[in-house]
Amino acid sequence: MTFPLPPARDKLLFTPGPLTTSLSVKQAMLHDAGSWHFEFNDLVADMREYLLELAGVSRAGGWEAVLLQGSGTYGVEAVFQTCVPPQGKVAVMTNGAYGERMIRMLHQAGIAHAVLRTAEDTPVSPEAIENLLNVDRAITHVAAVHCETTTGILNPIEAIGQITRSHKKLYVVDAMSSFGGMPINFERCGIDFLISSPNKCLEGVPGFSFVLCRREALFACEGYARSLSLDLLAQLKGFETNGQFRYTPPTHSLLALAQAINELKLEGGIEARAARYRQNHRVLLEGLSGLGIQPFLKSEVQSHIITAFPYPRTPAFSFSAFYRGLSERGFLIYPGKLTQVDTFRIGTIGRLFPSDLQQLVLAIGHTLLEMER
Amino acid sequence: MTFPLPPARDKLLFTPGPLTTSLSVKQAMLHDAGSWHFEFNDLVADMREYLLELAGVSRAGGWEAVLLQGSGTYGVEAVFQTCVPPQGKVAVMTNGAYGERMIRMLHQAGIAHAVLRTAEDTPVSPEAIENLLNVDRAITHVAAVHCETTTGILNPIEAIGQITRSHKKLYVVDAMSSFGGMPINFERCGIDFLISSPNKCLEGVPGFSFVLCRREALFACEGYARSLSLDLLAQLKGFETNGQFRYTPPTHSLLALAQAINELKLEGGIEARAARYRQNHRVLLEGLSGLGIQPFLKSEVQSHIITAFPYPRTPAFSFSAFYRGLSERGFLIYPGKLTQVDTFRIGTIGRLFPSDLQQLVLAIGHTLLEMER
Repeated sequence: MTFPLPPARDKLLFTPGPLTTSLSVKQAMLHDAGSWHFEFNDLVADMREYLLELAGVSRAGGWEAVLLQGSGTYGVEAVFQTCVPPQGKVAVMTNGAYGERMIRMLHQAGIAHAVLRTAEDTPVSPEAIENLLNVDRAITHVAAVHCETTTGILNPIEAIGQITRSHKKLYVVDAMSSFGGMPINFERCGIDFLISSPNKCLEGVPGFSFVLCRREALFACEGYARSLSLDLLAQLKGFETNGQFRYTPPTHSLLALAQAINELKLEGGIEARAARYRQNHRVLLEGLSGLGIQPFLKSEVQSHIITAFPYPRTPAFSFSAFYRGLSERGFLIYPGKLTQVDTFRIGTIGRLFPSDLQQLVLAIGHTLLEMER
Repeated sequence: MTFPLPPARDKLLFTPGPLTTSLSVKQAMLHDAGSWHFEFNDLVADMREYLLELAGVSRAGGWEAVLLQGSGTYGVEAVFQTCVPPQGKVAVMTNGAYGERMIRMLHQAGIAHAVLRTAEDTPVSPEAIENLLNVDRAITHVAAVHCETTTGILNPIEAIGQITRSHKKLYVVDAMSSFGGMPINFERCGIDFLISSPNKCLEGVPGFSFVLCRREALFACEGYARSLSLDLLAQLKGFETNGQFRYTPPTHSLLALAQAINELKLEGGIEARAARYRQNHRVLLEGLSGLGIQPFLKSEVQSHIITAFPYPRTPAFSFSAFYRGLSERGFLIYPGKLTQVDTFRIGTIGRLFPSDLQQLVLAIGHTLLEMER
């Protein structure tokens, strides 16, 4: 007697995204929605409201959620392209690839900027921005990355925000990989614009980004936008005029987010999700420590989102063999992005549970053993 | 005895997109692919090759297919933002909303442009561009929309392309709603950059656009890009460096395109698909003619992609009641976009067959009768 084979299972993604999502999130994409249709537009409106609720702010309190087609990077660039006036200047605080990317997008758009750089293992410095704002009066915006996924380091966005606000500057936070996976106090951080993605801790699929912003701050930007597609103010006005995206939205990705939101609520919101991710992270670190593998960062600055590990110090180690060994066992990890040290990275977000991390640790042990042979 | 209810069926979309796709295209999205993973990158490389094949060109012949996150509009803007030099000037030929959108994106990016406008029921004019190129020596690029979905009008992209080439200017064609749904001869049209979307005649889902271009023309644009996200040359270099998108791609939409391509091949390629769409269009026009509804355009300039119809001349007609009546019957049509005449539009592309159009015609008849009561 033979049994039918089980359906092929996707490899689990231990990455910063695209990441493993639930089957039910993906099944939400088995529908073709009309982007002009009122039912779809009602859904989009509800999701915009819910994202604010998740952030602990509201439209009544002067906040807006603007969804924008494209990846998270598009959302960050849209804030700069839309909101920095012609004579504006952005202070970018960077300690990794995503801070450096902000610098590149400002450079390419011809927007003046100053750079405050710390080492990749060191949080960006509130003192440094205080000093800079005291001397450089041209600065209009301060930009920082919350969780820099190059290493998984957490930057002190609250301390920086309070300094930024005391100098009456606007504050842009890239919270791509942290929003939904840990609490962020918008008011205490003094956030004006926060950018994130449905495809990180919200456990939706890629296709768009969203910007949570103070309405007043966005409406003050009339006439600055240097790009039509990335014009965040026009995008908000579009939603307000007829409830629609100005240009074709990724309808299936939006349906997936609606289901992902249902599942986030079911799990118990951000606190419960953060607890699961922390537990994932704990299992990973304990397990790898047992294999002699320690994280690149000190634990005080390490997030539970993603973790960089220096290559094991054994001559037999090759990242490509390691990656393929794990892939063959059904686990996809992520390459490093550090400039100085060779690392690999392991994400602990997405539809992953502590048992998945236990399995990954076992697979890493077996793969390393195999490489020694 | 009771039977289980049939599963809810999506309303059919008679729109220019997002449109109705096959269930198997949507089922291709039931997987989470790693955007860094070699298997996924191989798939992306294969799709880039196939898009060129579909266009009747090849990499060996000097062509490239560049996929870009965002809607089709992002692809058009990316061409302008990447490829027009600081002193460049674009002649835009327009007879509808998509030509006007090009003008807006050039204006917002601060790129010099000239406008050649014809009435919405009149194809753009090869004579006009010939005359303009003879007098305005500053023009570097000519841009035209193939099928202007405002009306469904077809513009003479071949005649315009030959004039553009004879003046040694670069030629940008927005073929968003036509590529894959009718043959386009790239060489005879003298195309340098053609933009389209997976979510039109290819019958994939939205989430990205693609640009088919002459490699030499794109590589000549080094240093011009005004946006990082929309930098088409950097995007191509990214694919060439490591096979990856520079920033998170909409992995699920890409998997959907792979399946959509399989189904296009199965159907018999562009010619067979064009035949089905032509038949859809014929059934629609004959059926509506029987109800006394005639298209806005003369048949010589009307495409089989989408058709605009002036509102029936009966006092009982209201678009909103008409739209809702059809929606309740399971059919979603599209509002008009004309500036002078009130129209509604009906798309005949996507996973729609002549029998679907017959059903739509019946539903339109019933809905109109109901409105008269």
